[in-house]
Formats: sequence, structure tokens, C-alpha cells
Amino acid sequence: MISFESDYIAGAHPKVLARLLETNMEPLSGYGMDKYCESAREKIRKACECPQAEVHFLVGGTQTNAIVISSMLKEYEGVVAAKTGHVSLHEAGAIEYTGHKVLEIEQENGKICAKALKAYLATFHGDENHEHMVFPGMVYISHPTEYGTLYSKKELRELAEICHEFEIPLYMDGARLGYGLVSRNTDVKLTDIARLCDVFYIGGTKVGAMCGEAVVFTKNNAPKQFMTIIKQKGALLAKGRVLGVQFNTLFTDNLYFEISRHAIDLAERLKEILLNKGYALYINSPTNQQFVIIEDARLKKLKETVAVSFWEKYDETHTVIRLATSWSTTEEDLKQLETVL
Amino acid sequence: MISFESDYIAGAHPKVLARLLETNMEPLSGYGMDKYCESAREKIRKACECPQAEVHFLVGGTQTNAIVISSMLKEYEGVVAAKTGHVSLHEAGAIEYTGHKVLEIEQENGKICAKALKAYLATFHGDENHEHMVFPGMVYISHPTEYGTLYSKKELRELAEICHEFEIPLYMDGARLGYGLVSRNTDVKLTDIARLCDVFYIGGTKVGAMCGEAVVFTKNNAPKQFMTIIKQKGALLAKGRVLGVQFNTLFTDNLYFEISRHAIDLAERLKEILLNKGYALYINSPTNQQFVIIEDARLKKLKETVAVSFWEKYDETHTVIRLATSWSTTEEDLKQLETVL
Amino acid sequence: MISFESDYIAGAHPKVLARLLETNMEPLSGYGMDKYCESAREKIRKACECPQAEVHFLVGGTQTNAIVISSMLKEYEGVVAAKTGHVSLHEAGAIEYTGHKVLEIEQENGKICAKALKAYLATFHGDENHEHMVFPGMVYISHPTEYGTLYSKKELRELAEICHEFEIPLYMDGARLGYGLVSRNTDVKLTDIARLCDVFYIGGTKVGAMCGEAVVFTKNNAPKQFMTIIKQKGALLAKGRVLGVQFNTLFTDNLYFEISRHAIDLAERLKEILLNKGYALYINSPTNQQFVIIEDARLKKLKETVAVSFWEKYDETHTVIRLATSWSTTEEDLKQLETVL
Amino acid sequence: MISFESDYIAGAHPKVLARLLETNMEPLSGYGMDKYCESAREKIRKACECPQAEVHFLVGGTQTNAIVISSMLKEYEGVVAAKTGHVSLHEAGAIEYTGHKVLEIEQENGKICAKALKAYLATFHGDENHEHMVFPGMVYISHPTEYGTLYSKKELRELAEICHEFEIPLYMDGARLGYGLVSRNTDVKLTDIARLCDVFYIGGTKVGAMCGEAVVFTKNNAPKQFMTIIKQKGALLAKGRVLGVQFNTLFTDNLYFEISRHAIDLAERLKEILLNKGYALYINSPTNQQFVIIEDARLKKLKETVAVSFWEKYDETHTVIRLATSWSTTEEDLKQLETVL
Repeated sequence: MISFESDYIAGAHPKVLARLLETNMEPLSGYGMDKYCESAREKIRKACECPQAEVHFLVGGTQTNAIVISSMLKEYEGVVAAKTGHVSLHEAGAIEYTGHKVLEIEQENGKICAKALKAYLATFHGDENHEHMVFPGMVYISHPTEYGTLYSKKELRELAEICHEFEIPLYMDGARLGYGLVSRNTDVKLTDIARLCDVFYIGGTKVGAMCGEAVVFTKNNAPKQFMTIIKQKGALLAKGRVLGVQFNTLFTDNLYFEISRHAIDLAERLKEILLNKGYALYINSPTNQQFVIIEDARLKKLKETVAVSFWEKYDETHTVIRLATSWSTTEEDLKQLETVL
Repeated sequence: MISFESDYIAGAHPKVLARLLETNMEPLSGYGMDKYCESAREKIRKACECPQAEVHFLVGGTQTNAIVISSMLKEYEGVVAAKTGHVSLHEAGAIEYTGHKVLEIEQENGKICAKALKAYLATFHGDENHEHMVFPGMVYISHPTEYGTLYSKKELRELAEICHEFEIPLYMDGARLGYGLVSRNTDVKLTDIARLCDVFYIGGTKVGAMCGEAVVFTKNNAPKQFMTIIKQKGALLAKGRVLGVQFNTLFTDNLYFEISRHAIDLAERLKEILLNKGYALYINSPTNQQFVIIEDARLKKLKETVAVSFWEKYDETHTVIRLATSWSTTEEDLKQLETVL
Repeated sequence: MISFESDYIAGAHPKVLARLLETNMEPLSGYGMDKYCESAREKIRKACECPQAEVHFLVGGTQTNAIVISSMLKEYEGVVAAKTGHVSLHEAGAIEYTGHKVLEIEQENGKICAKALKAYLATFHGDENHEHMVFPGMVYISHPTEYGTLYSKKELRELAEICHEFEIPLYMDGARLGYGLVSRNTDVKLTDIARLCDVFYIGGTKVGAMCGEAVVFTKNNAPKQFMTIIKQKGALLAKGRVLGVQFNTLFTDNLYFEISRHAIDLAERLKEILLNKGYALYINSPTNQQFVIIEDARLKKLKETVAVSFWEKYDETHTVIRLATSWSTTEEDLKQLETVL
Repeated sequence: MISFESDYIAGAHPKVLARLLETNMEPLSGYGMDKYCESAREKIRKACECPQAEVHFLVGGTQTNAIVISSMLKEYEGVVAAKTGHVSLHEAGAIEYTGHKVLEIEQENGKICAKALKAYLATFHGDENHEHMVFPGMVYISHPTEYGTLYSKKELRELAEICHEFEIPLYMDGARLGYGLVSRNTDVKLTDIARLCDVFYIGGTKVGAMCGEAVVFTKNNAPKQFMTIIKQKGALLAKGRVLGVQFNTLFTDNLYFEISRHAIDLAERLKEILLNKGYALYINSPTNQQFVIIEDARLKKLKETVAVSFWEKYDETHTVIRLATSWSTTEEDLKQLETVL
């Protein structure tokens, strides 16, 4: 049985785990006050070329989205997101649980288009009844998106300009950020993101860590008393070192980018294999997630030897499935896949 | 200046106010424990032909929606509603504030169609990732809808059957229920609603009361300790009598239906006048709200003498406006309107 | 049967009701945008000698407390209140429902003492773990308190100074404010309250209105988009006029104070009667609520002819009960009471 | 510098970490669906002698408390806890954030006494105004308590009986459960806890894991769709294996108990050393946390070589500090401490 089920099927990257082992018995203060957290913060600030950035470590993606969004919104505001956004669909209502509406707008291949965003915001403010409506108070995008697609630098800049015009922050969910940054079809660098977004997170769980996401506030805009807010939401890890050591390792010697590149290389090979085998791509993804339309009977058979993810029903007899590579995928996995497809 | 701005531009129906005056100095216990509340409950149970109904009085519509929906949903559930539903658009996120998502689905003229509802619910349960999603835990409809339209008895029955099949309650927002029940184009009676819906409310604010809505739980399904829940949400009126006396009066001698009929008669006349004057209806509403597409310059002029409601922009140069009649609209109002249109 | 059960056993003061009747058929815009609301706001600003005050009308006391407190606190803050405070004990957890803790501190006769408050705040900030604790973000007092007692001007000033020192607002719940302001044992005037408190509310429900409370923000400190916040909490009355007309009347020709004085005069008489009849006061209240310790058997008998409120058990065989006067209490009520005590 | 700052100053127990390393590259499904989670659940059920137990893994203690408490309470209920309880004081309002009040009652050495609990519950139900109050819907205890103390089996049984009588669940916070179970002064076994409590959690973070707590529902009473609830609260770990592998290891070959015993042995030694050196114990704790009253000047000096925890101010010139042992404390640590005390 080989698995392309997700990009979180393995534990931590061996180098990350090795550092956890090496530092394991050092006595350290809790709650992110240790030297590894501090060092990791500094390395991330450097990688972002954003010396004023405030960096906080959290455990998982949904948790990060809920805390960042709810703590940056005013109580009468909601967050604008693509209908297909992770916060819209696959977080079990975590954002609404914090009391805020996800204002879902149209998308294309998982991306919000600047024109639609601008029209939405303008319509809202032009509506004479808007005081009875949820105010759009932030824009959420994911990069890569849930469909593996990427914003171009131009698209990102346009979104940032609109947010700036309407005075609301732009937030990027970077659960798979590494895989986006090293894609062969992108002109967006980490420094661009740090410059254009008001807040974003660098995903660890899916890119080499056993758990952990690094939130970066780029504009001296971290919510006051953010640590207490994290505690209040049950998200303050007692052994903050676990996150600090991991991110410190991922941002040493370019590890985060190298392991991402490995996943992208294999994803491109995966795409070739799928196309060669006559599979129809649901979307042409430039990152580590590949989406395929497959006939249901064929899927049933495939699942006997390969773990894949159900994505959605395509039609009565077809299903969209996802195959993901990650830092842990091997050449051998691909070879085996090729034989059973 | 004449006003067709809304159906809540006047105070209370004179008979309702008279009864408030007559009973004003009687010492009564608070919080809905008085004899007028009890009498009103009994009259509503009778009008619904639903002796087991539990009836609670609340102050306003958004409040009622938020309390009914949040107290009937499990914490991991959301409420299915039309994209155009009042809870979706015009309650400033009151439902999300309670921690629950409004699961917006497609609509037609403000109505949810049975087929779309069924498809939505079936797709949800067929999705292998549905444990990561908000569970649909209730269906919300408004009758009349926000566009003045009405469900037929057949449509209502179909929705009820689907809800029954998926074991979730059907909730009807009856903010303007009176105007729906006496429409010339309906086969739905109050008793049908009490039979088909699991919970609904009879709107008072827009139909003769100065404030107040009567929630009716029809299936022995009122949330336990509902009075405490109402208190917790800041919605327990100290002088519950104010609501009791009003509903007791509205449900005496058919007052609720008679004053609704007056509004409908005038609404039909209003529609004729609008059509005669060459206005284009945005929708052909069988109830007390009429929606008209009007050229912006003409609207500007109209507003000098007539108060109307902005509804939405139709296109660059046109706006959809709403003109509403109510129990308080007079023949004289219509005559004056006719002269200035 | 005579009733001293509470100060909300009658409807509205006749003059208030008369004005509702007179204005009943005037077409007015909703949501507090009408001329009566505006006029009432202006009269309250004048009575407070606080021209910059922002005045908002809400329906009830628990609702007002929950909205004011939650919208002024930061998300990691709680509100400091006496253990006996209405928000602590008798609002069914309405404050916690908004996500904020009530930080209960010791009290004396319902009052917070400045020394205890200062010690609490100092201890909090001196605690090395305070980032893991709820931050005190507001001080809540009631005046009169739940036990009918009053702060002196000196006490109020001390509390205000402490709040100022710790940079948190002082909020006064004035559900029975009228009865406090005209007490024979007070040196606190409405203008003192407006000067010393950051926000407070003038109670209507218990002082002449059928419902309604007027929130006054005195320091240009009303939460941004407060109307939308009110809507989101289900508390925006469609017919805002109902509140506007009532407060406009109460603040015309000193009505609010005159009817309060009537209640206080009768409360002093009531106290005399109780003492003459040999009842033990639980507390010597200078306002309209009187608390009596009564033997249980005697209470049982008393209840056959007089409606009173259970307050708390005093010991195995005695109960503390409350008898309240209000604007609606009559000399005749007292005479009757005297005969049956 | 030696550290007795807390019981979470080191990473994971070496055996736990070794297993994480061994299993690191196995492809496994996420969200707790892997074989290690299943195996760990089974081992915990066995250790509890509770075959029907439902076991869920969460990341941290505050998170666990908030999710268990909020998902088991009805919306109008609060949780009864000692004033000194972790949920009362040191979780930054995490419980209130879920909308529920912590109903704080008197305690002795961190423990709730059965008599006080019974009196509280009886008083609540006897209060004629209790429908306006937060209903006590659960009892929260910690074992060991925040002061290191333990309930006896008799005390635990009494609490359980009261909970049973009032039909509310008894919940035990076992953040340091291991250290309690192997104390030299306890007659409470894990099987007693599983029998007497309706739900409890077995702490991992402080007892050998790098993170993780195991919630055990013992009476077929796990909230419906609990996994979705966990996701909604942002607490569903993508790589659930990290928790599964850890607990699977901790509950293999008695590891959890053995490492706890090590900590207790050293804690008893620590207590001796402290007493020999003339320190005054604040409380005589039978578990791994020791509380000492220390003169402030002496504390200042001590902190130069030993990391300890501030607990609370004792008086003007003294402070209560906490010294904790854990599985990671060494004999060497104690020796060094002895030399510097």
C-alpha cells in the first residue's frame, strides 16, 4: 500500500526530529519563552526581510485561522473568503464559532479575483442597509489555494491594494506555503508576501514539522496581549520549545525550501505519470496537490493499493480525487504508483 | 410626505394600544408569568389547532431567530437558509454571533426549492470529509420571504418531508406571517404551518404590535429551560405583560387576520397603481411588500414626497426599491401616492 | 391582594403611555432614527450636562449590561463586579455568554469598596502569571445596588480614580437610577455620575417606562458602529420610537425625578410601617427596595394577601424578602399593607 | 542553573521520543484514525478497566478543559469549580470564552468539600429566582489539585454521589494524574477514577509526553460528533499519530506509572531537603509540586541559581513559590539544589 492521501502522512522531517532529540533534556521555560522560539522568530524575520515582524507559533492550521481572524476582526466584522476557502468549508465552522461570519465570494480555481473583491466591497458600502449587515473586516486567501493554485505577484498586489483602499487587512493562509514558494510557476517570494500581506502564516504541519504554524504579523499589528488570547483559545502549547525547535530547524540552511522543492519535483513527475496513464486533471496545479477526475469503478480498484483523498463528486459516475506529494514522498512511491495506475 | 418605507412605521394598532392602556395599572408578575401571556398562549394554541404547542414571546425578529436557531442546533451544526434569507444577509451576523454558521443555498425569488435542499443535504452526507464540515442541523425559511413571495402548501410539505427524512427541524420566520396568511394567492393556513413546521414565529412587530414575536414550538420540542436561555441572551422582557396583552388582543376576534387583510387589499391596489404608472415590478409579490425597478433620477425626485426603502442596485442607472403597506396604511396614503408617482 | 413584589409590576407611567398614544400613528423611520429618539438623546445630554454624550436606547437591563460590557472589553478582558452584582448572579450568565468572565470581588451591602478594588487590581498586575489570567478590563457597579444601597460621591470618586489609574472604564448599572438620585441619603447627582463614570445607563423599565434603558457614553468612547453591534446582539428595536417617546417624556418637566421621589416617599413610609410592626430590616436601604427578615411561617401567611419577593434564605426558619415601591405604588397600597402585616 | 520551575521543562520521555522516531516515516491517516491512536485507546480502556470508555486525544490541558466542559454543558449551565481551580484562575477565561460561567465555590487546599458542594447545589435549587441564574451543570475537580493535594477515595465517592443525586457529571482534570496515582498518600486508583468520574483526562504533557492529554468518557456519554466539535475548536491535530504514539508508549509496560513514581520519590526527597534547610511549607503536598514560603530577599538570591515558579504573594515580605519535580528531574538536580538552598 502506498499513500498519496495527504501531505501530512509522515511524522517530522528527520532533521527536525533529530533536533527535537538533541534538545530534549534541556530544561526550558514554557509557553514560547525559550531560546529556540526566539531564534526561530529571528530567522523567520530575516527570511521575510521584515525586521519588525512579530512571530507567534501555533499548533495547527484551523486553530491559527480562527485565532488570527477573530483577534483581528472587530466584533461586527466578518472575513471575506472564497467559497472554496478552507475557512469556508473545511474547518467545521471554527470561524463562526468565534462569532464571526465568513463572507463567501465567488472564486476561480480557488482564487479570489481582484475585480470581484472590489465589486463586493464597493457594493457593501453602497448599500443603504449596510449597518444591518456584517462588515467585511479582513480578506482571507490561501496560497497555495485548496486547489493547489497560486496567486501571481500582480494578483497579490492588486488584492493588497484593494484591502489598503478599504482599510482592512489581507491575511494569507500558508498551510502549504513552502510548496507554493518553490513552485516552477510562481513569481511570488516570501519577501513579497511579507510586504503585501498584513498577516500570514508559514505552514509547518504540511511542510516538515510534526505540528506547528508560524504566524507573522508584518505591520506592527499583532493584537495586544496576543499570548493571553492564544491561552484563552486553548492554543498555548505548554512546551513551546516543540514548535521553536522545529521552526528553528526548518529555517536553518534553507531546509524549509529544500524539502518543499523535493515535493514539487515529485509532484511534477506525478502529474506526468497521471497524464501518461490517461487520467484527466481536474485542475492543472503548479504545486504539490494534484486533482484527478476518475471513474468510480476505477477509483474503487485503485484504492486497494493506493491511499488517495476523496475531493468531491464530479458527476454520477466520476469522482475528483486528490494525490499529494510532500517532503516525505519518495521516488519509490512514484514508481510503485506508476505500476498500479 | 407619505411613507411606504416599511411595515413598521406606525406604533401599535389602536385596539392593541387601547388594551395596554386598560390593563396598565394592574399589578402583574414579570417575565411572562402573567395572565395575559397565558391567555395569549392559549389563543395561539387554538388558532394553530395545536394544543401541545409551547408558545414564548420575544421582542424582535433578529432576536427570535438567533435564540431559536442557536438553542435548537447542536454545537457542531449550522442552519440552512436561502442566500437572500434575513438571517443570511440582514441580521448583522446575529446567528454567527451565537457560534453557528448560516449554510447559504441557492434560492428563487427568496424561496428554497425542495430539490436544491435535498441535493444539498445528500451531498453533505455523501462527502467523505463531512466530519470536517458544519453539519446542517435545521432549515430556515421565511414566509412571506424577504421578497414578499410565499410557499405553496405543496412546497411547504416537500420541505417538511425532506427535513423529516434528514431528521432536522424546519423553522419558519413569520415576521410578516399575517400578510402571508391572508394573501389572495396562498393555500397555506396557520394550521398547515403548525402541522408542517417544527417551530415558527408569528410576527407582531410588523403586524399590529409595537413590538413582539410569538415563537411556537409544535412538537413538544422546546429547548429545556428555555426561559433561562432567553434571559441569558438578554431577551427576557421584565414586563412580559407588554407582549402578552398585545398578542392576546391580536388573537381576539380575528384582529391579526383582519388587519393583515387590510394591508393586502391596499398592497394589491398599490401594485395596480404602480403598473398603471408604468413602473416595472422587480418581482410580482402576492403580499404587502412591492418591489419596483426605478430609474435613479426618478427615484431621487420621488423621495422628495414619498419615503420608500432602498433594496438593491439594479444596474448602473436603476435601483430596486420597496414599497410596503401595513395595517396602518390608509386609502388616503394611496391616493396621495398616485398623485406624485 | 396587594403587590410589593417588584418595581415593575405596572405598565408605563400614565404620561408616558399618553404620549405613546398621541404619537402612535405618525409615520417614523425605525431603529432609533426618529425625532423622538433624537429629542430624548438631547434632553438626556442636557440633564447630564454632558453635551458630548452619546446616548443609545436599549430594551432591558440584562441586555444592556451584556452589550455595553462585551463591546467595551477587549477579548482577553473580564469585568470586575461585586459578588452580589446583578451581572454576577441574576443574569443567567449573560456576560459569560458574550465570552467574558465576571471577576467577582468582595462587597459590603452590595457595594465595592475602593480599597478592595485597588488591592485586587494591584495584585493582578503584580502576579507573575497574570498573562495566563483574565485581565480586569472594566469595573461594574450598580447604583442603587441590588441591596438598595448607594455610593456616596466620595466613594464614587475614589472608584473613578482607581479606574483612571488602571486605565479601565467605570460602568454604572442604573436600572433603578431615579430612585437613587432622589434618595434622602445621597449627595450624588446625575451630573456627578456623568462626570465620574465612563458609561452608565439610566433605567426606564423600573422607573416609569414599559421597557427601555438609556445608555450614556460620556467620554467620546462609544464603541465604533455601536448600532450594528446592537443589531448583531438581537437588541435593535425596529420601532425605536417606542423607546424614544418614552424617554423623551420621562425627561420632560422633570417627570423621571418626580415619579422617583414619589416611590422614595412611600418607601420611607414603608420602612416605618415595617419597623413599627416589629419586622427586622436585613439592611437599612435608602432607596425603593426594602429588605426584611421574616419568620417562614409568618411569610407563608403574609403571602396570602401580599405579593413580595423571595430574596434569600436567612437561616433554617427565616427568609429575607424584598418589598419594593415604585412610581406606581399608592398610599392605598401602604394602608392595606399596614392592616395585614 | 538548575530548574524546578515546572513539570514541563523537558521534552518527552526518551522512550516516548524513541517511538516517535521509530514510527516517523510510516504513512498514516490523520486526525486520530491511525493504528497507534487505536492501540493507545485500547490500552487506556484496559488500564481503566472500562471497556466501554471512549478515549479522545487532545493537545493541551486548557484546550481539553474548554472542550470537555463546553461540549457537556447545556447552554444555560455553568461548571462548578474551586475558586483555586485551574479553570477558575489560570486559563485566561477559556471556559467563559465558550459562553459558560465557572461557578466558583469555597475550597480547602485546592479541594472541593462534599458538604460545601451539596449546600451549594441545594441552595441553588431552593432559590426561587434560580431560573434567572446559571444552572450548575457539571462539577470540575483537579486531582492532584493546583496545590498538589489529593482527594481520598471516600471524598471522591462523596462528590460522585452528590453529582449523581443532582444528575450532573463529575469531571476530573488529571493534568498531573500520574503523580497523584503513585503518591505515597493515596488510596485512589485509576480504576476508581474511571468508576466514579463521568469524564476525566489523563495528563500527558506533564507526565512524559511532549504534548497531549487523553480524555476518557466512562459512561457512554461522549458528546455526539465529538471529533467535529474538536475540529470546530481548532484542536484536531492533523498528525493525530503524534498523540497516539506517545500515549501508546506511556501505557506500555507501565511506563506512565513508573516515571510518575520517579518524580514522587524525588519530590519526597525535595520536601525533606526543604524542611532540613528550614523552609516553611505552604502546604504539605503528597505529590510532585512543593510549595514553600520564602522571604523575598532570599528568593531573589535563590533565583540566581535555581528556576522556580512564583505562586502568589504571601505577605509584604514573603512569597509562595513552587518547586516541581517530574519524570525528568534527576538526583543530580536535587544535590545541586541542596548546595545552593
